[in-house]
Amino acid sequence: LMLHFTGSSTSLLLDFPSGPLDIYRKKASFDWKEMLVFMDGDEILQFKEYIFKSLENDPLFARQPGEDLSLEKMRELNFLRTCRMKQIFRYNFLTKEEAYGNPWKLKTLEDCLGMYDWSCLAKVFLNKGMFGGTIANSGTSRHRKFVFGCFALTELSHGSNTRAMRTTATYDPSTQEFVINFPDFEAAKFWVGNLGKNATHCLLYAQLYTPDQVCHGLPFFVVPVRDPKTLLALPGVVVGDMGKKLGQNGLDNGFVMFHDVRIPRENLLNKTGDVTPDGRYVTPYKDPNKRFGASLGALSGGRAYIGRMGVVNLKLALTVAIRFSATRRQFGPKDTEEIPVLEYQLQQWRLMPYLAAAYALDFFTKSVFMNFVEFQMGQMMKDKSDRQDELGREIHAITSSCKPLGSWTAQRGIQECREACGGHGYLAMNRLGSLRDDNDPNCTYEGDNNVLLQQTSNYLLSYAVHIQSPLHSVDFLDDYQNILKTRFTAETMEESPSSVSSVPLDAYKWLVCFLMEESQKRLEQERAAGRDDFEARNNSQVYFCRSLAIAFMEHCCLQNCQQLISDQDTPAALRAVLSKLFSLYGLWSLSSHMATLYQGGYVNGRRPAELLQTAILALCSQLKDDAVALVDVLAPPDFILNSPIGKADGQLYKNLWSAVLQNNQVLERPSWWKEFCWDKPVVGSLRSNL
Amino acid sequence: LMLHFTGSSTSLLLDFPSGPLDIYRKKASFDWKEMLVFMDGDEILQFKEYIFKSLENDPLFARQPGEDLSLEKMRELNFLRTCRMKQIFRYNFLTKEEAYGNPWKLKTLEDCLGMYDWSCLAKVFLNKGMFGGTIANSGTSRHRKFVFGCFALTELSHGSNTRAMRTTATYDPSTQEFVINFPDFEAAKFWVGNLGKNATHCLLYAQLYTPDQVCHGLPFFVVPVRDPKTLLALPGVVVGDMGKKLGQNGLDNGFVMFHDVRIPRENLLNKTGDVTPDGRYVTPYKDPNKRFGASLGALSGGRAYIGRMGVVNLKLALTVAIRFSATRRQFGPKDTEEIPVLEYQLQQWRLMPYLAAAYALDFFTKSVFMNFVEFQMGQMMKDKSDRQDELGREIHAITSSCKPLGSWTAQRGIQECREACGGHGYLAMNRLGSLRDDNDPNCTYEGDNNVLLQQTSNYLLSYAVHIQSPLHSVDFLDDYQNILKTRFTAETMEESPSSVSSVPLDAYKWLVCFLMEESQKRLEQERAAGRDDFEARNNSQVYFCRSLAIAFMEHCCLQNCQQLISDQDTPAALRAVLSKLFSLYGLWSLSSHMATLYQGGYVNGRRPAELLQTAILALCSQLKDDAVALVDVLAPPDFILNSPIGKADGQLYKNLWSAVLQNNQVLERPSWWKEFCWDKPVVGSLRSNL
Repeated sequence: LMLHFTGSSTSLLLDFPSGPLDIYRKKASFDWKEMLVFMDGDEILQFKEYIFKSLENDPLFARQPGEDLSLEKMRELNFLRTCRMKQIFRYNFLTKEEAYGNPWKLKTLEDCLGMYDWSCLAKVFLNKGMFGGTIANSGTSRHRKFVFGCFALTELSHGSNTRAMRTTATYDPSTQEFVINFPDFEAAKFWVGNLGKNATHCLLYAQLYTPDQVCHGLPFFVVPVRDPKTLLALPGVVVGDMGKKLGQNGLDNGFVMFHDVRIPRENLLNKTGDVTPDGRYVTPYKDPNKRFGASLGALSGGRAYIGRMGVVNLKLALTVAIRFSATRRQFGPKDTEEIPVLEYQLQQWRLMPYLAAAYALDFFTKSVFMNFVEFQMGQMMKDKSDRQDELGREIHAITSSCKPLGSWTAQRGIQECREACGGHGYLAMNRLGSLRDDNDPNCTYEGDNNVLLQQTSNYLLSYAVHIQSPLHSVDFLDDYQNILKTRFTAETMEESPSSVSSVPLDAYKWLVCFLMEESQKRLEQERAAGRDDFEARNNSQVYFCRSLAIAFMEHCCLQNCQQLISDQDTPAALRAVLSKLFSLYGLWSLSSHMATLYQGGYVNGRRPAELLQTAILALCSQLKDDAVALVDVLAPPDFILNSPIGKADGQLYKNLWSAVLQNNQVLERPSWWKEFCWDKPVVGSLRSNL
Repeated sequence: LMLHFTGSSTSLLLDFPSGPLDIYRKKASFDWKEMLVFMDGDEILQFKEYIFKSLENDPLFARQPGEDLSLEKMRELNFLRTCRMKQIFRYNFLTKEEAYGNPWKLKTLEDCLGMYDWSCLAKVFLNKGMFGGTIANSGTSRHRKFVFGCFALTELSHGSNTRAMRTTATYDPSTQEFVINFPDFEAAKFWVGNLGKNATHCLLYAQLYTPDQVCHGLPFFVVPVRDPKTLLALPGVVVGDMGKKLGQNGLDNGFVMFHDVRIPRENLLNKTGDVTPDGRYVTPYKDPNKRFGASLGALSGGRAYIGRMGVVNLKLALTVAIRFSATRRQFGPKDTEEIPVLEYQLQQWRLMPYLAAAYALDFFTKSVFMNFVEFQMGQMMKDKSDRQDELGREIHAITSSCKPLGSWTAQRGIQECREACGGHGYLAMNRLGSLRDDNDPNCTYEGDNNVLLQQTSNYLLSYAVHIQSPLHSVDFLDDYQNILKTRFTAETMEESPSSVSSVPLDAYKWLVCFLMEESQKRLEQERAAGRDDFEARNNSQVYFCRSLAIAFMEHCCLQNCQQLISDQDTPAALRAVLSKLFSLYGLWSLSSHMATLYQGGYVNGRRPAELLQTAILALCSQLKDDAVALVDVLAPPDFILNSPIGKADGQLYKNLWSAVLQNNQVLERPSWWKEFCWDKPVVGSLRSNL
């Protein structure tokens, strides 16, 4: 079992060339190849290798670290790699059948494309997954060819509040068409990925009006926006590019407005409701709330994966920062010899907790995705059971906080990695900047993180009423009263070397129960003070519901860590290092809640905080010799990572130096050199009297 | 007194056009013009207006929000605005005499140029301040004409550890020249601002060797690197551009290496030591440590100002985020009407503490700078007193943590502002991205923040031995033993409306004393365990010395707030709002130390944390109606702010929409449109067997 990677033929398991990173690689307490095989398995490893190699060998995907590309060029390159239906689609890395056979393969493909460039994944996914998937489901087959699509929901003045959208589709029975209009530019569809330069059709969310002036909610319509032969806008359509974003600039986000644009009746995607040729609205759903709730599940898939996108970014940033820290030497006990900055406690404390988080969250986001697959299977099988319904609610509650946890942890972690690499981390070629920029929208799209957390706390606060927990995430709440009576009693943090510390998990159980009770109380106080539900909820977020959702999600993640360690399939030789990682993640996360633990009396006096701090520093120090091997497991090949200071050979300065010299015009004088000498300085010639 | 702004003629005090921000402007509890005059005074206000207007009226400084410029173009534009000695120097905004008369004017000029673009300020400052200032001081007048200079210290493999630099200057008595060499590319000078494309001369830090092979430390030398007539590199010099950075790309950072480059003996800047024509080293300093210490003061000026650069960035970001929040409406108590997102407690809690921080730190960084001016005056007067020496140490300790406090608060605050603006905050044109990117190096250059904090804790931990405190920042430590016995006793956080809450200041005093004691203990434990000084110090940073330095600096800032409120010159009508801001800043900062307050027994039980949380939320809510007026005070004119969603008229969507439409090629089809239709999709044609 321990050696089940033997015989695998993937080059991802090849040894690294010997070099400056050897001193750490040799000290590692575990076999990184065993870890890699444990995490991915042979099939996924080979699949990853195939994707990575395909991209690396294809000149269309060639790139230089930190190259300075114009917006136009970034759009074009990403188009050539994706939309032209040439490269990504020609490779057809994954057939539908293969994806059904092993759903994790689809996410692996997305991880791999994202590691290369999230714009690339986004362009493919928005067209094939979001647009194509929806069209395929609804069976309006005539638009399938030559169509390149997008998903138009957000308006200039409305994002989260989808019900307030103002674009309208009014049915005209005389021609059996819908007429699409928008009241003013504030209702222009905005932020639509693929729409800036490329899309020929969009899936448009619009308020459906029947001839009797009744509005039937917000279904979507297939609306042609550009002529596929010329890519020119169609009559009545104003469509354009939004311009530069902070990151993901290969993706052309755009806007569109419609003036009396007519589309056939059949272009309404009619799964949740249809309009008859004579203009009556018919729906298979009796309860309109149920109709709205039916989409909850679909949203969960996106959110679960956005959380993971954060984790993937964090893994890349850590690879760069830890390889850098292991090879960058600065100061030392003697003047004559400098030590790697990874040897400093401060540097360990800045990076090791994020490394631990990357492992914990990598396993967790995978597990959440597999839960989502279970839910989706139920939907496909038309499972109408209560369990399926509860599963939908639970997965919605989990993904709504899994996204904030993943994206925020990544945001902070990448920033720490960037600062931990000092000036060299500030060079664009080392990629920490683009990782930060590309990760950034994960915090706000598909629901702002702070807003999404409310979905989870709402779910938890309804616990007493109706929660069943198919995924067992809230089972422990049955013991609510007893948990609230527990106290921190540990005298030491020393654990047997192969088990996760139970301290954080116990503390989190208490914390979730405490915050539930406090949030409940707060809501009651607010209502007692005469505030309506809207205001009462709004005033109960900070310090209460928001903290509750975060603590609950961290508890879910730790629970998953615990299960993984006790799982028979987890190789014995990996348990020690995994336990250290998970313990560190748990204790470090918990340390941000210490004030609450004191406040509620779970801990008391000096000892608990001291124990926690000592344990965190000890784990950081124990993990530092494993750190390089741990990122070797997470790292993609150098070509994909695309960061000179993060290369696997650890030749920090050689790689950095040669990347600098490979820049364009690096030694050339500037084109405007003559300007330098023409004018003599005329100090103050433009000075007016103050 | 209350109306002392009457009669001022600067347009910075003009009323804003009426519009969507009126609802907040009318509710403000204070007169924003009075605040502006209080903070700046008439002279500075007029000076700012003159600078802002000059830039706005000069076509060379014209720009479009979020424009997509190549690296080459950014370098060129910034060159034209600065180095060509044309614009910035022609304006000659400030003469030397004026700067001496009112030193704050120089910082005001820097603030204003920085608000426009930090690259612009950096290019001017590195040449005129750093290079020119040093040359002028040392009187090697022959290189003053046509010279454009830079400051070459950092090497590829060494930043913080300056003593380990390896570029050498060996004196050759036969020609009375220094021969400059470098051992290998790892000793290439790296990160040198202005050197990438522009500089003709550099101030080079190199190890000085006399013919007897003795090294005499690291003085600097004026070394020509490019021919001023052609901008081509001189023989023996390899000089080039480092490439794209995460931000500040108008500044051309570069590298340089020297192969047997000879410079005249006189090019050694000989303030701290000289070489005689026959090759003997002579120095006016007897104690080499004193020679090293003499530069501490100079470093403080840069650090003090970097802290302020962070604050300036934060002020700009808050202007954008708060004006956006006051005009962006989303959801509401009824379906029919939406409310500004600023009305949500959560949004207030995300932004108001940073607004409070911006005010507290604005006053504080100004006060630190004026302390530095006092020190510098002493240096110029050749003050050799003990007080001057102590002042140097104290100012060094303060600026070493003022920089981390300012830059990190800005880093986090800008990120919060960006997320608080949702998707629109992710559009490059709204500037939050470039503010974050341009602020980022403040966290790592001129000393990594974490490393700098050690300077402050070292100073504090030497308290018992020798600290005198000309600035009184550590005077309270005389009461050390009594302070450690104090406890949190407040029953309520209600204060008289015009005084800063004393709760945080008292708590911080205890916190600093507690952390000093704990750090001291920790160091002793480490030494008792047999660790040498290097290791003992390294192992005492996390949770101890690092926290100590941060707490001390926050205490200094709060002390400054307290003084300001009790100052007779602070207008009575402004005290209420300033007190709220300072109280919020104090309580919010303190809340990040709650665990330590509990741990050390300063607070106990549930009440203190509840009081703190309630007070923070109450202050956030009280300040939200003042928020727009408070950013009106901090905001530069729209042209300088350069953010459509942050414009003063509050026409959020109109401004955003028109900026989008003004982008290049916004409605055009892409140049590569034909590619879209040429190829029919050939799914899987490149697929190999897995």
